[in-house]
Amino acid sequence: ESERIGLEHGAGGEATRKLVAETLASGFGDPEDAIVGLTGMDDGAVIPVGEENLVLTTDSHVIDPPFFPGGDIGRLAVSGTVNDLAVMGATDVRALTSAMVIEANYPVAKLERIADSMAATCEEANAAVVTGDTKVMGNGEIDGIVINTAGVGVAPHVTPDSAVEPNDVILLTDSIGEHGISLLAEREGIEFGSDLASDVKPLNDLLARALEVGGKNIKTMKDATRMGLAGALNEIAEKSGVGIEIREERVPVTSDVKGAGEMLGLDPFQIANEGVAVLAVAPKSAENVLDELREHPKGENAAAIGKGIDDHHGRVVLDTGIGSRYLREPASEPAPRIC
Amino acid sequence: ESERIGLEHGAGGEATRKLVAETLASGFGDPEDAIVGLTGMDDGAVIPVGEENLVLTTDSHVIDPPFFPGGDIGRLAVSGTVNDLAVMGATDVRALTSAMVIEANYPVAKLERIADSMAATCEEANAAVVTGDTKVMGNGEIDGIVINTAGVGVAPHVTPDSAVEPNDVILLTDSIGEHGISLLAEREGIEFGSDLASDVKPLNDLLARALEVGGKNIKTMKDATRMGLAGALNEIAEKSGVGIEIREERVPVTSDVKGAGEMLGLDPFQIANEGVAVLAVAPKSAENVLDELREHPKGENAAAIGKGIDDHHGRVVLDTGIGSRYLREPASEPAPRIC
Ligand SMILES: Nc1ncnc2c1ncn2[C@@H]1O[C@H](COP(=O)(O)OP(=O)(O)OP(=O)(O)O)[C@@H](O)[C@H]1O
Ligand SMILES: Nc1ncnc2c1ncn2[C@@H]1O[C@H](COP(=O)(O)OP(=O)(O)OP(=O)(O)O)[C@@H](O)[C@H]1O
Ligand SMILES: [Mg+2]
Ligand SMILES: [Mg+2]
Ligand SMILES: [Mg+2]
Ligand SMILES: [Mg+2]
Ligand SMILES: [Mg+2]
Ligand SMILES: [Mg+2]
Repeated sequence: ESERIGLEHGAGGEATRKLVAETLASGFGDPEDAIVGLTGMDDGAVIPVGEENLVLTTDSHVIDPPFFPGGDIGRLAVSGTVNDLAVMGATDVRALTSAMVIEANYPVAKLERIADSMAATCEEANAAVVTGDTKVMGNGEIDGIVINTAGVGVAPHVTPDSAVEPNDVILLTDSIGEHGISLLAEREGIEFGSDLASDVKPLNDLLARALEVGGKNIKTMKDATRMGLAGALNEIAEKSGVGIEIREERVPVTSDVKGAGEMLGLDPFQIANEGVAVLAVAPKSAENVLDELREHPKGENAAAIGKGIDDHHGRVVLDTGIGSRYLREPASEPAPRIC
Repeated sequence: ESERIGLEHGAGGEATRKLVAETLASGFGDPEDAIVGLTGMDDGAVIPVGEENLVLTTDSHVIDPPFFPGGDIGRLAVSGTVNDLAVMGATDVRALTSAMVIEANYPVAKLERIADSMAATCEEANAAVVTGDTKVMGNGEIDGIVINTAGVGVAPHVTPDSAVEPNDVILLTDSIGEHGISLLAEREGIEFGSDLASDVKPLNDLLARALEVGGKNIKTMKDATRMGLAGALNEIAEKSGVGIEIREERVPVTSDVKGAGEMLGLDPFQIANEGVAVLAVAPKSAENVLDELREHPKGENAAAIGKGIDDHHGRVVLDTGIGSRYLREPASEPAPRIC
């Protein structure tokens, strides 16, 4: 019989993890000296280089359409990789790669816009593309453009997604759901207020500020991408071996996102963000870190949304105000090519 | 008017360089501390991390068909990136990334073969994939599978493609043309002897041996990929600001490659290799390095094929035995999706 790849394998959740663990990455052994290896299944890997913790990460970007409200594939490609570095603790981005696979007949003018956007986002993130690759596939062999970015950074203090302890405070840097919901609204041709736009942005500047204040009391950081906030929290809870309790009313969701989400049948907790991170901070530093986040333009909406608990290990409990239920990660992809 | 991308932009030659320099990478500034930055347009970039020279490189692989005589896209993806690191001097591969974009409906059994091949090639190269990404595009939105690999390594002695001086000896590690010609023969459905197969292989073990013997007398190394040996030599000559003189009869070409090349109208000098490197070595070390290469199974066919000259600056002169002519890099892509 012949098993075949489905869209769910690209959704970043259970199906992806299973495919990666059992097939795509089953033959690779972690280097002996890896600080966070492939088996960590974290936002990036960490290996020692000299005295430094070198963080390495990669993402391919297949978003459709490549130009969307609030951003484009170039801004996404830089932000996505910068953020995976930053949430591992490497807010100091040392270098990025840019590898483009382009469909024959693609307009050069669009490439110019994409390249300009990458350059501007690099400047914003104080990052530099130092090497790349360009391949062309025939017309009809690839739909437009795919951009892979890999990145390296240095992390004085590594923040894996597995280090939350009971009572650690869960901070969220921004309101949720904007990237995924605005993209899908755009695809459906539905117009909401002009405020509905992707949240795509590099977070390393913001997270560097948080680390300055919180230091090693910041235990875990993770960007809430493909599987949304629900996915990120579940992964953190499971890997940390603690429960996480979230107070629903504390999670910022804009009214545009709420409205559009209802219309599209999409839960803002379960959809991709591209400029939102979760932090777990020891109680004694939580308030300071939150204040620092809020002082930064990218952290204005930051909130303390919950805490680690020594119960419901590996699961996320959502306190809705009228009761509580498990917050599960989305079962399969809400939509393909969202990032 | 609307300029559009053509297959030539993915060929790795003049059109690619122009697109990269004028459009795709025009907005990126090199980090101040870069040892080899993007402007070097070399096989990889080199940046300082602690006391080390960290080499970073990336390549996307779009080869069609993904399984071909002598290899597959998995072996290619690992070898290609390992070789770009190795020719920069980073034969010590610290880590690789693997980012796959897969067409919906792709058979999992094929992914298993590809993953096994990547793992085996990693073992051969003493390299490890430590992080990756998996995206799925819809059926018909991408033709099969595209794999991007990025890599980092440490180079005690950096060997850029721009350091050749007059009288340096040009060494070639293997016979040329096998990858491209076998692939195109396969595509055309033409059968030649069973010996006609891709040369795809990681070269870091071989080049590490050369560096042990030659040390800093090895000035330049470069893998002769998309633009073939002619492309690699021209780039080296131009960047080094010297001429390079090649004795045609010294360049090993198997009779199968010669025969198939004639039949297909392809020049072995002008077609992709995926396991062949060019070295430029100071005269006093050249013989030792060549002997060392020849003792290694991957260097059995190694040869001294020419030298740097203080004439014809930036160009490659081919001595055919009956006269001499410039060896030019291929004007455009001999064939798409060859790597
Ligand atoms: N093809 C692959 N080979 C090896 N490892 C992989 C592969 N695909 C994913 N991984 C690993 O699986 C884990 C989860 O990957 P995923 O891409 O979901 O993380 P992410 O990049 O943080 O999220 P997103 O892609 O949504 O931004 C990571 O540790 C990643 O290194
Ligand atoms: N899209 C891009 N953005 C930035 N730099 C690029 C891009 N494409 C190529 N480059 C740069 O152009 C130079 C040539 O790239 P090229 O891919 O031809 O080298 P290579 O990987 O050694 O060859 P091959 O891809 O045939 O193996 C490299 O320095 C590379 O970093
Ligand atoms: Mg991540
Ligand atoms: Mg990511
Ligand atoms: Mg390349
Ligand atoms: Mg190269
Ligand atoms: Mg290459
Ligand atoms: Mg990813």
